[in-house]
Amino acid sequence: MNLVLLEEGDFVQSKSRVELQGRRHRHLLEVQRVEIGSTVRMGLLNGPLGEGRVVAMESGSIELEVELSEEPPPVLPITLVLALPRPPVLRRVLITAASMGVKDIVLMGAQAVEKSYWQSHALKPEAIHDQLVLGLEQGVDTRLPRVRTQPRFRLFVEDELPGIVGQGRLYLAHPGPRPAFPDPGLKEAVLVVGPEAGWNEFELGRWEEAGATRLSLGARPLRVEAAVPALLARML
Amino acid sequence: MNLVLLEEGDFVQSKSRVELQGRRHRHLLEVQRVEIGSTVRMGLLNGPLGEGRVVAMESGSIELEVELSEEPPPVLPITLVLALPRPPVLRRVLITAASMGVKDIVLMGAQAVEKSYWQSHALKPEAIHDQLVLGLEQGVDTRLPRVRTQPRFRLFVEDELPGIVGQGRLYLAHPGPRPAFPDPGLKEAVLVVGPEAGWNEFELGRWEEAGATRLSLGARPLRVEAAVPALLARML
Repeated sequence: MNLVLLEEGDFVQSKSRVELQGRRHRHLLEVQRVEIGSTVRMGLLNGPLGEGRVVAMESGSIELEVELSEEPPPVLPITLVLALPRPPVLRRVLITAASMGVKDIVLMGAQAVEKSYWQSHALKPEAIHDQLVLGLEQGVDTRLPRVRTQPRFRLFVEDELPGIVGQGRLYLAHPGPRPAFPDPGLKEAVLVVGPEAGWNEFELGRWEEAGATRLSLGARPLRVEAAVPALLARML
Repeated sequence: MNLVLLEEGDFVQSKSRVELQGRRHRHLLEVQRVEIGSTVRMGLLNGPLGEGRVVAMESGSIELEVELSEEPPPVLPITLVLALPRPPVLRRVLITAASMGVKDIVLMGAQAVEKSYWQSHALKPEAIHDQLVLGLEQGVDTRLPRVRTQPRFRLFVEDELPGIVGQGRLYLAHPGPRPAFPDPGLKEAVLVVGPEAGWNEFELGRWEEAGATRLSLGARPLRVEAAVPALLARML
């Protein structure tokens, strides 16, 4: 946690004082080991960044005076489209994507996506929210990414994708003989990362029809949780 | 598992027939759903790559005729030096590094590395071996990386590092205002990834004295398990 992320409900009395319990309280005590007068990096969810100064500590809570006036960092203008990975991988990928500045994530279906994944607790809005917050706290950012789901492959590729791609580029990650990357001057793009077992022939055909350019980090297939940061790093 | 990795003890009768039980047997049955006659990608640990054809299936084991004659893929000429991360992160990072072709890994101490991590089961040679094998199976490679440990920061940086760097370059990953990467023509290099809590001032001073060039993916600090694939992807 490189940033303590605040929500409106944390503020007490005035707009400049917060009271924290639970996870953030424990982190400040046990990891950052704050004392009265310590300052810590803070930010308001979907709002400005700044600092908090510890003004009161009690057994179950901590109070800080906050001053939040800085802009959050620039976003990474990439829409990340992921074939829904298995739940523990999804949790880690959401943290990674949020920490790297992605603001738009689509979780989609594919033949190789197990149907049971769609019933996972990890897809509940509050579970997704929690992982995104961890990612923002890691990457020192406040702007919450948007996560959408579409279990039906064709519905997504044929009906929803064109509106998402707009005037930007569409890249399909796919292991290939040689690394192939977009131009460094990349402005807006959609990056599609498939299931670890791969797309089937039908699906690859639909991506081609949709105008996707293949993007490769070389011949070695990577796990989704490694492929996402590796590919995003090539688009920074 | 994009490759079934064999060890010498798997061969029966001749040098072209293997019998598998346990994890690899279950994978072939349950994930790859092989039948008699199916072919699967196989490789010999520290040896050639090739194919196996299923010739016999019994309840607890499977036999394959193998032909192994291809060279494994080129290595990534990067020595990865990691401040020892906490055990679950270590496990994932070993898989990622092995899957991306890294062949030389050093796990080192730092002030922010908790002493208890050095006692973890994840550091036992057989535990490290298992994670590296998972990484090779992911990346379709056979050459086992070497993993060394040095809990003492100064001993590593002052006595061991110069011999490891040799005529190559030394890069220290460190969040910075702007992304900064090595030249694309990179041949040999040492990449150092610090603890998530950062190096202390003393440690940063020693890295500077050692001639390390700072490398950055931008201002956002990443978790180690995301930083490693992101940085390696910039060095491909």
